[in-house]
Amino acid sequence: MPATRIGLLLGDPAGVGPEIAAKLLIRNKDRDDLQYLVFGTEAVVAAGARVAELDLALPVRKAGQPIPKDVPGQILLAIDDQDAREIEARKASRAAGLYALRSLDAAVAAAKAGQIDAIVYAPLNKHAMSLAGFDNIDEMHYLAQKFGCNHFCTELNVLDQLWTARVTSHVPIGDVAGHITTGQVMEATRLGIATMRRAGVENPRVAIAGLNPHAGDGGTIGKEDIEIILPAIEALKGEGVDVSGPCSPDTVFVMAYRGAHDLVVSMYHDQGQIALKSLGFERLVTVLGGLPVPAITASSGSAYDITGKNRASAEGLISATELACRLVGKAA
Amino acid sequence: MPATRIGLLLGDPAGVGPEIAAKLLIRNKDRDDLQYLVFGTEAVVAAGARVAELDLALPVRKAGQPIPKDVPGQILLAIDDQDAREIEARKASRAAGLYALRSLDAAVAAAKAGQIDAIVYAPLNKHAMSLAGFDNIDEMHYLAQKFGCNHFCTELNVLDQLWTARVTSHVPIGDVAGHITTGQVMEATRLGIATMRRAGVENPRVAIAGLNPHAGDGGTIGKEDIEIILPAIEALKGEGVDVSGPCSPDTVFVMAYRGAHDLVVSMYHDQGQIALKSLGFERLVTVLGGLPVPAITASSGSAYDITGKNRASAEGLISATELACRLVGKAA
Repeated sequence: MPATRIGLLLGDPAGVGPEIAAKLLIRNKDRDDLQYLVFGTEAVVAAGARVAELDLALPVRKAGQPIPKDVPGQILLAIDDQDAREIEARKASRAAGLYALRSLDAAVAAAKAGQIDAIVYAPLNKHAMSLAGFDNIDEMHYLAQKFGCNHFCTELNVLDQLWTARVTSHVPIGDVAGHITTGQVMEATRLGIATMRRAGVENPRVAIAGLNPHAGDGGTIGKEDIEIILPAIEALKGEGVDVSGPCSPDTVFVMAYRGAHDLVVSMYHDQGQIALKSLGFERLVTVLGGLPVPAITASSGSAYDITGKNRASAEGLISATELACRLVGKAA
Repeated sequence: MPATRIGLLLGDPAGVGPEIAAKLLIRNKDRDDLQYLVFGTEAVVAAGARVAELDLALPVRKAGQPIPKDVPGQILLAIDDQDAREIEARKASRAAGLYALRSLDAAVAAAKAGQIDAIVYAPLNKHAMSLAGFDNIDEMHYLAQKFGCNHFCTELNVLDQLWTARVTSHVPIGDVAGHITTGQVMEATRLGIATMRRAGVENPRVAIAGLNPHAGDGGTIGKEDIEIILPAIEALKGEGVDVSGPCSPDTVFVMAYRGAHDLVVSMYHDQGQIALKSLGFERLVTVLGGLPVPAITASSGSAYDITGKNRASAEGLISATELACRLVGKAA
């Protein structure tokens, strides 16, 4: 069986990314079912290893060049190190943002060239990327643009056996209701199901969260649950989906996590993220659904408050790697 | 030390209320630091005890009559049983709603007459109460009206050592942003602190949740976090409150629960409720803050799906009782 080739990004180089990437690489260094191709620079990789107190020496090749197919093990694919000396730990800077964007770009190019099967990336810092000229809503929109995807993409979040898909994501609360449409609820559900199928979950039991408190309480707290979400559920049932809802948002996630459902479709960012981070902060991962290759990250942030202290957990990147292997399907 | 006198309501008599009330009463029957005055009818109390497979025989007096001060132990204060025979388990009905409203009214009268120090109530069913003519937003507004309170009241939720206060509650998501004002954020925070002080927490470490994803991410996802919430935090600091924020909503609750903060002020119903139910569904209680006596309930619902099966947990009512004792302060 060929190894799953994972493009590993250090995320925001000023945050915990380099140190948790080092922990991940050491932990998985002897596995022959997967190969990490690390997009970064020698200096930042070494700095992360120093914080993590690990001895990490990767062979280096230049990103963008062909990789001989028979090279096993972990490789550092060096990105442009111009500006990288200006990066300061625990500080959102233009230099750090450029570094993160260059590594994303290099990973997209490698995916297009067939060099990697999946992207796993450490937490990014949007402020740093903005200083470097990033003006997309989030990295999903950035990657979709770089890949030339025009269809619906969505963030999926995965905690242990529970998956969530979102109808809206980085949208102000005041604008959420206006973005919920019957069609978008159906799209998010279908994409969640399709992604889970790639990961080997054939007929997920789906719950659709309501939008309003108590899912509108019979229409007394907002009409969207009845008028917009319920028709989506009826239509999905007509397509053969095992789906229920609209469910009260404050109980559906915890009950699903305890086994009632495999996929919960959430209406907005914090509805699902508050639930999943409360249920298992360290193990939570985010999958960008709809891209040509799966892109997966730990759901925690760049965490400047603990950067450099060797306190950050690599659990999220470990979970992300396992999920990448399942989604790529070589390990099945 | 005089016992804390708790007015115990069965909540929606068609739901799990009677059975979990029976469990609570049996569990605490030998405590001499608290006395339960149960507002209900013999038939419904007996039905709950049957489901819970418990032998519960309470002395009966009529609600609204004077109670001799030296009567110890648990007493049933009988409310009007007209219509009660029409109550059907697991069904939201006018009769069940009337029962719940009569028990609320009787408890308010008893509190006004100085017969009880606190109200603990099993889960209500708003649909049933609506069928019985209830047209308030929720039971907090109903009780505030019955008590003649004109000042700011708010629901507080308590899980173990973590408290949350809300700026808005049963409001559609589309209307939330419009209800967040600097003044209301300050009011909710102050009321949370004042209620915690009654419970013996002197100087709580407060975190104010942001409204938008990532607390607006520096103003890129909505302006309310900077323009409305931040000024409230600055003003509260000026009053000497130990307060931080606006914090990212998807991490502040789990970090507070792990010990970072004592009180989190949430901007809307599901922001706090999703977090707390995910962190400890069975133990969560709701306190109505601002009423003349504390009113506390288990945060789970009337749960028709498990009613009559002796599967419902009394943990919430047990936690509610303990908190009532702390708030009344006789046990201190």
